[in-house]
This record gives sequence, structure tokens and C-alpha cells, in this order.
Amino acid sequence: MEDWNWPPAYDESYRPPPDQPYWFPRRETMPAAAREAKILERVQQVMAYAWERSPFYRRKWEEAGIHPSAVRSLEDYERVPVVTKAELRRSQADHGPFGDYLCIEDSEVFHIHGTSGTTGRPTAFGLAHADWRAIANAHARVMWSMGIRPADTVFIGSFFSLYMGSWGALIGAERLGARCFPFGAGVPGQTERAVTWMASMQPTCFYGTPSYGIHLAETAESLGLDPRSFGVRVLFLSGEPGASVPAIREKLEDLYRGQVFDCGSMAEVSPWMNLGESLGRVGPLLWQDVVYTEVCDPGTHARVPYGNEGTPVYTTLERISQPMIRLLSGDLTRWDAGPSPCGRTYPHLPKGIYGRLDDQFTVRGENILPSAIDEVVTGLHGYGGEHRILVSRLEAMDELTVQLEYAASVGDVAALRRRAEAELRRTLGVNTKVLMVAPGTLERTEFKARRVIDSREVLR
Amino acid sequence: MEDWNWPPAYDESYRPPPDQPYWFPRRETMPAAAREAKILERVQQVMAYAWERSPFYRRKWEEAGIHPSAVRSLEDYERVPVVTKAELRRSQADHGPFGDYLCIEDSEVFHIHGTSGTTGRPTAFGLAHADWRAIANAHARVMWSMGIRPADTVFIGSFFSLYMGSWGALIGAERLGARCFPFGAGVPGQTERAVTWMASMQPTCFYGTPSYGIHLAETAESLGLDPRSFGVRVLFLSGEPGASVPAIREKLEDLYRGQVFDCGSMAEVSPWMNLGESLGRVGPLLWQDVVYTEVCDPGTHARVPYGNEGTPVYTTLERISQPMIRLLSGDLTRWDAGPSPCGRTYPHLPKGIYGRLDDQFTVRGENILPSAIDEVVTGLHGYGGEHRILVSRLEAMDELTVQLEYAASVGDVAALRRRAEAELRRTLGVNTKVLMVAPGTLERTEFKARRVIDSREVLR
Repeated sequence: MEDWNWPPAYDESYRPPPDQPYWFPRRETMPAAAREAKILERVQQVMAYAWERSPFYRRKWEEAGIHPSAVRSLEDYERVPVVTKAELRRSQADHGPFGDYLCIEDSEVFHIHGTSGTTGRPTAFGLAHADWRAIANAHARVMWSMGIRPADTVFIGSFFSLYMGSWGALIGAERLGARCFPFGAGVPGQTERAVTWMASMQPTCFYGTPSYGIHLAETAESLGLDPRSFGVRVLFLSGEPGASVPAIREKLEDLYRGQVFDCGSMAEVSPWMNLGESLGRVGPLLWQDVVYTEVCDPGTHARVPYGNEGTPVYTTLERISQPMIRLLSGDLTRWDAGPSPCGRTYPHLPKGIYGRLDDQFTVRGENILPSAIDEVVTGLHGYGGEHRILVSRLEAMDELTVQLEYAASVGDVAALRRRAEAELRRTLGVNTKVLMVAPGTLERTEFKARRVIDSREVLR
Repeated sequence: MEDWNWPPAYDESYRPPPDQPYWFPRRETMPAAAREAKILERVQQVMAYAWERSPFYRRKWEEAGIHPSAVRSLEDYERVPVVTKAELRRSQADHGPFGDYLCIEDSEVFHIHGTSGTTGRPTAFGLAHADWRAIANAHARVMWSMGIRPADTVFIGSFFSLYMGSWGALIGAERLGARCFPFGAGVPGQTERAVTWMASMQPTCFYGTPSYGIHLAETAESLGLDPRSFGVRVLFLSGEPGASVPAIREKLEDLYRGQVFDCGSMAEVSPWMNLGESLGRVGPLLWQDVVYTEVCDPGTHARVPYGNEGTPVYTTLERISQPMIRLLSGDLTRWDAGPSPCGRTYPHLPKGIYGRLDDQFTVRGENILPSAIDEVVTGLHGYGGEHRILVSRLEAMDELTVQLEYAASVGDVAALRRRAEAELRRTLGVNTKVLMVAPGTLERTEFKARRVIDSREVLR
């Protein structure tokens, strides 16, 4: 396998010829079983490395009665206890700032990043220089599979701060040799300026969240510009399920007349593009030789068979600073075995990451995923580009209400409301009240959209 | 001279031992005349390079009747016509997006940046990979002279977008081998989060604008935290004159109990840290072997003698993409010959960049620099942290008014107002009306402060 080393060390001068579909042909197209044999070896190396250097992992595994040498198969590996985000936070609270799962010296930390910490204690990432380069190399490889080439211009329309999304896209694009346009996002007036710059620079690739991609296109239209005129061929999007939701994907592809690629797992496991869609377009591939991903039963944390739904559990195979060894995502997805039509022998997620175990809410006994509502409303002809999901309780009865913005072009708003209510009832199995709101009423986001407002807790 | 090549090519594995005061001892401490001889050779190379590749420069020099081969001394060089920002904008409007002063192929552009374009047409920067590395290497060297070392943690508290400030500080810190904490700035709530992260991460170095440094410290205090507890030893600041204004510098040094270093010229000439203060602390040094700076008479564009005031004219010695050859800054400064007590044989700017030819305004016949007002009010005991300068015209009479925020601790507000009026009249030579406003009334900025509001134009 090309450049397959532990600790990771990439040949930074390597770049495939532009007409070669694979960055690393052997690693990407080898039989899955042969790759898994290599992954098992690497998992053993990573566990031995963490056992030596991290009190956190040693404590955890001693408590579970598992020594790294006992892992002799990927089935054995399923018995290694999962790590939760709460455990990471606790470790950092007790052994700050990076927790006692930091496996390098404090002085070897090259970049500091972290979670945004909008809810609860933020988690700090201390990345080694080798990690940073491994991320750049892995992301360049995944972006190559989307058809991005050195001749492309990559516009990055997301905020540069703690969030690893923007940085990961940037260093991947740099490593790939593309022209990088790290525009950022987040300050007042930035979206209008982005429109001006996209019109003049004609970036062929766009990175951001699906919500922001839509917001940017709408802003362009409000300024009298057609986003199709920007010449964007590839939209690679992360941070939200949207890019794998057919209606949102179609909307974005129609707005820009470019192809949408879904990517992204969790900042903690960067290279987070380890879930990344290729030109095969069957949903994100699991780039198992970068981050070994098991889609697991949420109860037993053992892998579910291909074709089934579960929650991803991630193991970084290239991270030397804060290796994640069976990190429980809490996300929801379904996996298939592959190979993809692009020739890569990785499993894939046909519907992407479509929800979280904990953002699934229950209304009158029905489990409801916000992404299912997103899919229905964004697919409605006349949808105005934004909506909100309100869950409330009246007396003992749960109420599900969707605030729905209609497009300026809609004549019969009441008819659209009736259609929305019928579609939602059919898909969700519960009665849903739809409130129509005028175009442009609901706030747009430049980051991840937060559309669910559940007031039942406060009312209890 | 160490790593002195054209086109630039740095040994990326080089780093001096931490106890060595100079990154490149020979380049930094050689006799100024010997360095100037090397600079003359380089200027000739850069001119020949631009003559061959840039219609913009060839046209300009042909019109002036100057061929690169005619420049045989730095005195000859003073006759090369200056470039104005308006010319750059015009060239980009006619030969978009990078203008016909781009000396590389479009496909060789590695990073796209630009001016913020808050006023007028923005200017696009197309940087080659070699430029990016030259910036990183030059900035690492200047930051080294401030005493920043690989053991340091560098917190970057400025917005990452088109603006080259944040990026230049980041890649310099990366190249130096420090721990980089690219926190960014600009979105709501970001400053409060910055306080939390600084308290937990204890960054030893801070980069941002002087205004934002003060705003961040005030925010910390409002949250009950003493910014001195962050452990910041070095504040290297750019984007505004503040870091060389004694009262602002003292305020920042008192707030953080760290040392302030002034740096920065113009984004167009990146490595913009070419004006950068060292531990000698005599004001920014002119790192002449990075960007050759002539402080010139604003009328003739010939150098003024050391000790005199003039406007900096910049020539990039390492930029292969869009070389700036005698770019007129329009800034105001005074230069001295050096050497600095740190042993570097560069000239320096004892008061930094303290104004612009065009933001100097006239009130009743007196030329007034906003920075002179800044210096008076920020030096007042009881100053509340922000102010505004209002220039208006009543009948035929100019009125100068300063809105002044008082600190919460001030008892006798009227006495402070009288003191402010007396000090301003004494310094400026014109009567100034001071209006006291309550603490926290005036908006703080996360970027460059814009404090002058001249309403005379609209009233005419």
C-alpha cells in the first residue's frame, strides 16, 4: 500500500497525473479483505501506542480487562469499549487542557483547535505537525476522488476558527495543488462580498455547509446574479446531513448547476473527510485506511451487517496526538458493502449521515428525524428556502408544527400549505400543522442550521 | 547572506537554536552599506523579471523612459516612477482578475486573497506557492526577533478571510515551530469565547489589532477575569497605528502585563511584517532585505534623509507573482538610520506608521492627525476605552468634537471633560469640544477602529 506508515509519513512531493482517477490506486482499489488485514495490523499498532502513552486508554482498557495484544481480529476489536464525547470532556476537565489521552508531549502540539462549545464545555484538539500533514494528505486524496484537480479553484465559504471544517478543506486543497481561495464566512456583509468575488474569480469548487450554499445562492439572486454564472462544478459540503438529502442536493445542483458531494464525520477524528463521496456518487465512501469506521448497533457496539442501520464508531489510523479509538459518534446511518462504481472497494453510506440518536424526537409515539422533515419540505415546489420545526405540548398532547417559508413566486399559499401538511402526514405518520411565513422571514445561517425548537422540556 | 536567492528558495528545515537572537545572523547584522549593495543587485533582478513578464511595468517604465538596465545605484532607483493603488485597481479592471502585473501563469496561483473592498473596488492578490513560503519564512524571522520561540503558543485573534494579517501571522508562527492557535474573530460571541480559551490555553503570544487587544481585555474584565492571568508575554499587533502610540502601548502592556511589538506595512507587499519591531524596542525595523523600503518626499518620491518625515515606498524583493516595485503607501512616518540596540543594522521607525497623507484633516487651518487625538485621550486617567472624532461645519466654521467614554470608576466626569479639552487644545492647537458618554456606549471593533466622522463633505 502506498505511503502506509506508522507513524504516518507522506511523500509530500507526490501527486498523481491529472487523468488518473485514484490518488493511491492500490490502497483505494485493493480487495476489501486484504485492506482489512492491513487495518487490523494498524489497529494493533495504534492500540499499543495508546497503551504506552495514554493513562486514559490504559485505565479504560484495564477496567474492561482488554490488553491490546488480545485483539487478534476485527471481531475481537468490537469488544474494545467505545469512547464517548462525555469521557473526553471529563478527561480534559481533569487533565487540562488536552486530556490524558494526549499521546505526545505538550511541546509537540503544532495547532490548537476545538469544538465550538456552543453547548457545554468545549473540547480542545492538540494536533501534531504529523497529524496536520496526514489530514492534508488524506483530504487531498478524497477531494481527488471528487474530480478536483490542480487546475481547479477551491472557494472555502465557512468560518475559520476552532472548527476543523474550513481548515481541513483548505489544507487538503493546498496539498492537492489547487488554487485556494480561503474566503471564510461569518461577519456582517460577508455573503454579499462572497457573491462579488465568486462572480469575478469563477471558482470551480465550493466548500461550505449545505445551508450556507443555499443562502449564498439566494443572496446572489437577490443581487440580480445567477449562481450558475459562477462556474462551480463541484460543491463538497459537510457539517449537516443536507448534501445526502435528495431534495436539498437537487436544489443545490439546480441552483449552481454543479455536482454535490457529501463528506464529513466528526472534528475529533480529523481527517474528517474520511466519509467522503467520490465521482461514483453512491453516498460517502468509508475511507477505511484513513479512519476505520464500524457502523454499530447502538446497544452492543458491535458492527451491524451491511445493509443495516447503526451508529458509526470511529478509529483514527493516522493520528498520533489524540488518537480516537472506537469513538462513538451517536450519528445514524446505513452502510452498504461496496465497491462503488468508481472502482474503490470501500463500503459506503447510501443516504449519508441522516440523523443523530439524540436528535430523533418522539411525537405522539412516533420517532421523527428532523432530516425527514427537511427532505419533505425542501422537495415542495414553492418552498421558500427556510423552515423551522416546533415541537410543543398542549395539555397532554404533543404538537408538531412546521413554519414554512414560501417562495415569492407562489400564488396560492393556502394550497401549498395543504400540500405540505398532506406530505408530512404521509411521511411522518403524525398530523403536522404547517404555518406559512412570508419569503425572507426566517433567519438564514452561515453555519449549521438549527431548525428544531422543542419547547416541551421547558413547559413540563 | 543566508538563503539569499532569486527567485526565493528557503531551506524549510532550518531553525536557529532558541538562544540565538538572530534567525539569519549575517543578513540581519551586516553593515547597512554591504546589504544595500546586495539589495541593488536584487532590485535589478526584480525589475528585469517584471520587464520580461509584466505589460503593466514595461508600459509604465517605457513611458517614463527608464529601462531596468539604467538603474545602477539606489539613487538611480529613486527615479523609477511609483505605483499607486489606483493604478493596480485599474490594471485589474482591464486585465482581470489579477491585472497585467501578474508575472506568473494564472495556473501557478496558489492562494487567492485581496483587500476587503469596504471602499471601492477590491484588489485581488494571486500568490504563488513560492511567495507563500517566502512570507512564512520572513515572518518567522521577524517574529523570532520579538523573542517568539518554538515553545510559545501564538493566539491569532483576527478574522481569517481575504485580509492577509491573520494568514501572515499564522504561517509565520507555523514556520517558526510555535504552537498555533488560529482562533479568528468576527462572529457574535467570539470574543467571550476567546476569553475562555485564553484562560484555559495560556497563550504566550497574541496577534491582532491594538483595538481588538483592548476590546478583548475589557471583555475579560467584564467577565470577571484579569487578562494578566492569561500569561501573554508578547503582543504583536498590526493594522492600526496604535501599537506605536505610547499611551495605547502602555495601556495594552498594563492590561496584559506583556510587551507590545508594532508591525505591519501593507497587504500588497506581504511579507507585510517587513516593518516589524524587535526586542530592541525602538519602533518597527525596516527589514530591507525582505522588502526594500524608501521613506520618501510625498512630492518627489526621492528618499528623505534619516531623521525626516516622509511616506514609505515599498519594493518587494521576494514576490514572484505580483511584484510591487515602488508602491506608494500614502502613509506617514519618520525614519532613523539604526542600528537598533538589538544589533540589527536596519533603519527603524521610532514612532511607527502614525498616519496617512489622506486621513490628515484640516480644522480651521490646522493639520490634524487622528492618531494625535488617540494619543491624548487614551493617555487620560479615566478614559473609558473608546472615543469618536466628529468634524463638522457650522456656518463657515469647522467644529472638532470628541465623544469620549469615561471609565465606570470616574467620579467627577465634568473634571475629566475639562482636562480632556485642555489637553487636546494644547496638543492640536485648536479648540476641541469634548462630549462625555457613559461607559460601554460606543461600539467596539474587532477589526480596525474607524473613529473619524467628517460630516463636512455631506453638508457642503
